[in-house]
Amino acid sequence: MHPQRWGDPAAQTSLPDSARGLIELAFGEIVERPAAEDVAVPAARIPDEAVDALRTAVGGDNVLTDDAARRLRTRGKSTPDLLKARTGDLSDAPDVVVRPGDQAEVEAVLAVATTHRLAVVPFGGGTSVTGGLVAAREPFAGVVSLDLVRMKRLLAVDDESMTATLEPGLRGPEAEALLAEHGLTIGHFPQSFEFASIGGFAATRSSGQSSAGYGRFDALVVGLTVVTPSGTISVGSSPANAAGPDLRQVFLGSEGTFGVISSVTVRVRPVPQDKVYVGWRWPSFAAGAAAMRTLAQTGLLPTVIRLSDEAETAINLADPTAIGGADEAGCLMITGFEGTPAAVAAKRTAVTALLTELGGTDVGTDVGAAWAHGRFNAPYLRDSLLDVGVLVETLETATFWSNRERLYADVKSALESSLGDGALVLCHISHVYETGCSLYFTVAAKESDDPLAQWAAAKQAASDAIVAAGATITHHHAVGTDHKPWFAQEIGPLGVQTLRAIKDSLDPAGLLNPGVLV
Amino acid sequence: MHPQRWGDPAAQTSLPDSARGLIELAFGEIVERPAAEDVAVPAARIPDEAVDALRTAVGGDNVLTDDAARRLRTRGKSTPDLLKARTGDLSDAPDVVVRPGDQAEVEAVLAVATTHRLAVVPFGGGTSVTGGLVAAREPFAGVVSLDLVRMKRLLAVDDESMTATLEPGLRGPEAEALLAEHGLTIGHFPQSFEFASIGGFAATRSSGQSSAGYGRFDALVVGLTVVTPSGTISVGSSPANAAGPDLRQVFLGSEGTFGVISSVTVRVRPVPQDKVYVGWRWPSFAAGAAAMRTLAQTGLLPTVIRLSDEAETAINLADPTAIGGADEAGCLMITGFEGTPAAVAAKRTAVTALLTELGGTDVGTDVGAAWAHGRFNAPYLRDSLLDVGVLVETLETATFWSNRERLYADVKSALESSLGDGALVLCHISHVYETGCSLYFTVAAKESDDPLAQWAAAKQAASDAIVAAGATITHHHAVGTDHKPWFAQEIGPLGVQTLRAIKDSLDPAGLLNPGVLV
Repeated sequence: MHPQRWGDPAAQTSLPDSARGLIELAFGEIVERPAAEDVAVPAARIPDEAVDALRTAVGGDNVLTDDAARRLRTRGKSTPDLLKARTGDLSDAPDVVVRPGDQAEVEAVLAVATTHRLAVVPFGGGTSVTGGLVAAREPFAGVVSLDLVRMKRLLAVDDESMTATLEPGLRGPEAEALLAEHGLTIGHFPQSFEFASIGGFAATRSSGQSSAGYGRFDALVVGLTVVTPSGTISVGSSPANAAGPDLRQVFLGSEGTFGVISSVTVRVRPVPQDKVYVGWRWPSFAAGAAAMRTLAQTGLLPTVIRLSDEAETAINLADPTAIGGADEAGCLMITGFEGTPAAVAAKRTAVTALLTELGGTDVGTDVGAAWAHGRFNAPYLRDSLLDVGVLVETLETATFWSNRERLYADVKSALESSLGDGALVLCHISHVYETGCSLYFTVAAKESDDPLAQWAAAKQAASDAIVAAGATITHHHAVGTDHKPWFAQEIGPLGVQTLRAIKDSLDPAGLLNPGVLV
Repeated sequence: MHPQRWGDPAAQTSLPDSARGLIELAFGEIVERPAAEDVAVPAARIPDEAVDALRTAVGGDNVLTDDAARRLRTRGKSTPDLLKARTGDLSDAPDVVVRPGDQAEVEAVLAVATTHRLAVVPFGGGTSVTGGLVAAREPFAGVVSLDLVRMKRLLAVDDESMTATLEPGLRGPEAEALLAEHGLTIGHFPQSFEFASIGGFAATRSSGQSSAGYGRFDALVVGLTVVTPSGTISVGSSPANAAGPDLRQVFLGSEGTFGVISSVTVRVRPVPQDKVYVGWRWPSFAAGAAAMRTLAQTGLLPTVIRLSDEAETAINLADPTAIGGADEAGCLMITGFEGTPAAVAAKRTAVTALLTELGGTDVGTDVGAAWAHGRFNAPYLRDSLLDVGVLVETLETATFWSNRERLYADVKSALESSLGDGALVLCHISHVYETGCSLYFTVAAKESDDPLAQWAAAKQAASDAIVAAGATITHHHAVGTDHKPWFAQEIGPLGVQTLRAIKDSLDPAGLLNPGVLV
């Protein structure tokens, strides 16, 4: 991963001339904003004896103190994170990076942290977009980035129960490759898939683009092991039970603040033989959303289902007539079907019949294939836009169906008002449930002189609107530090007190990811 | 509810002569064991000023101190509970019964309990079978049964989101009747359905006979409000999210120990137009279980699916030839399909094709209808058997598919060994998941002179076997006091510590259902 950009440096592209033309049309003259190079990481502030103890815990080769290693574990990949990294602000760099090789070494690292009063930031793929990797430095003797990169084993496959136990450091494609040798898949494909890790998926309660078919990651987890400063706990004695509160759901979404997830057992499925993605056109966002609701409530959800609003439909496809060849732009829906040929055919037939009846127009598989081809590319595009002074960021929420229109209108209005004239606010529904759906907003605006403040104001306005509408501050990006104030409003003082009680019990010195979540 | 028996006294029956003959054949001469009548409730031990304060909180009419009221809220409906009640042991009677009418009155009762140091036992349908209504008396000034019977409103229906908000005191049929006026159903039908309450379903993480189609109760809950001694909390801002740990899953299964559930918002479905129940015969329990697994992993689960082992199949049907008319007894499976006529027909066709291919024999809808007709009757039969000296009790567990055979063999063997010659041990699978299933055991044995000790030994042996096999101590009966030692083993010391931390934070004086769960 590039320290100032998303993803594989080799996959970076510059904007095509056509895109530059569109940007000039939308935002005026292009101002190149190259990232600062060769920026210095602040001097580490951690006692030598603590570093020595970490070396004893995981081996000298796995304790990294060099600038490049520390720079690469500085913050995550939100636009504010990137803006800071681009200007050379590395003030949140960890003092040291440790790479435990197994659960015992994670336990050893936490023991050292306890002894030396070190803050510990669990690090998986480094793809947080909510400030989940920014630990409070005070009152600790140092900040350790606990990188799980060496814990990449497939620990067990149970092909009768259709479960697999994975180590947390496996990135999405690595986990899928190991499972594919057994003909299996997790089916979890968030936009961060190429870099995000199994541990991160669990710690942030992630949801992928195929969640309608395979389920959210929290629904896929049947068991997990968590190393805490108070000891190690394994939960998940059965698929489901009535044995008290579901402790799995306490650790899922705990964002490294209760413990370090050292293994995850997930439900797996056969690798799908067929994958078909079909585009649909709807006269309006509301009509498409109503169709999604009907699919969900009829029990007919495809594997993938997403719907862009009018603005996102127009932007994404450049030429609106590509959507079915009609004059009106309308809204584009992507439906995806994965499984055996028979299952794909049967579901597609049933969904086609229902969507047609509801007023949708099948615009074929080319549009669907185009979406599938580019499904992980948006973060690269963001970097190219930041290069030319266009601020791009996303945020997401979810609510019940009856509140969808209000939430959409309020958040869109909050973003447009705060970002001012000329800002683009796009939205899509990417996750659908029987009782409601997510809303995922993307904004693009000409950068002001202080783009961090510019985005902070927009984010504040949108977040206030979300909480005022009674919706959730995050559907699949987690809380981190960025969402903390609104998360506290969402769950109320007693909810915060409950999480704090768990935290204080498992991590009494408050070493784990301090300042994140609660 | 009868204080010594299950259910509606008017629905009680005595055993038919044919059954008495079978019992004599199985267990020898019948010894009538009538229940003691006119037994006295121990004198209440609670300060008058506490009772006066409760009267102020909920009104004088809603504070009951009479013997009948206290007797009816003494313990639940496990066989040990019934055995104690039948012999006149009412030592666990609450001192007073209070019936708050709304959430504010629940809050007022907890305030009084805090001031006067009273233990509070939330009481819904009174159908606990795990000692969930037996509060530790010390060191409290008195024990209050907080009966939610007056909180029976349907607070909201959202037919766009397909959710409904219900008060906790609604019993199963009452909730269904209110929802039926809107054409809706929850679809939650545990065997206790006729008496158990919405609050109890949530507090015990209940699972119903139609859970394959409608989902477990914990999966149906999208929001809930809980009154704790530290304040009132509402959780559930969206169908699903990434906003920290899922606090809904902390209160679901908390069995009244963290707070009193004052409202529950559940996913609802249209009342099914069609209901069809079809019987299938399998050559063995293993073959039937394998078929269930295939259905679950193919995404083809019917609304209801259950499978009796050879012993239960033989007992339940008296004449084994009724199962398809073959010589061999085999194992009976019930499949149920509910929904629109088209959905029922489509699912039934697909399931029939798959089960036939897997070696099952369709034995028609008469067997299925017979099951559906008697689905809530077993607890009545238990009373009739206790009347004639036959000890009957059930227990249940769940595990992953690859562990099913071991768990089945170990628990069956533990029960048979401890109950001795002539005991009947029956089993069925009643809940099925992609990754595993439940096992529900029923035992019948001639009562010894000390049936409580007789069952305690069997329960201990079975519970030890369950934990040794790595399975859960309870799939849908909750923890209560009866399962506490094994629950602690299942979640480990750190799991207990986590729950204790939540409890201490929300209920610092430990007033709520003391002794239950943790």
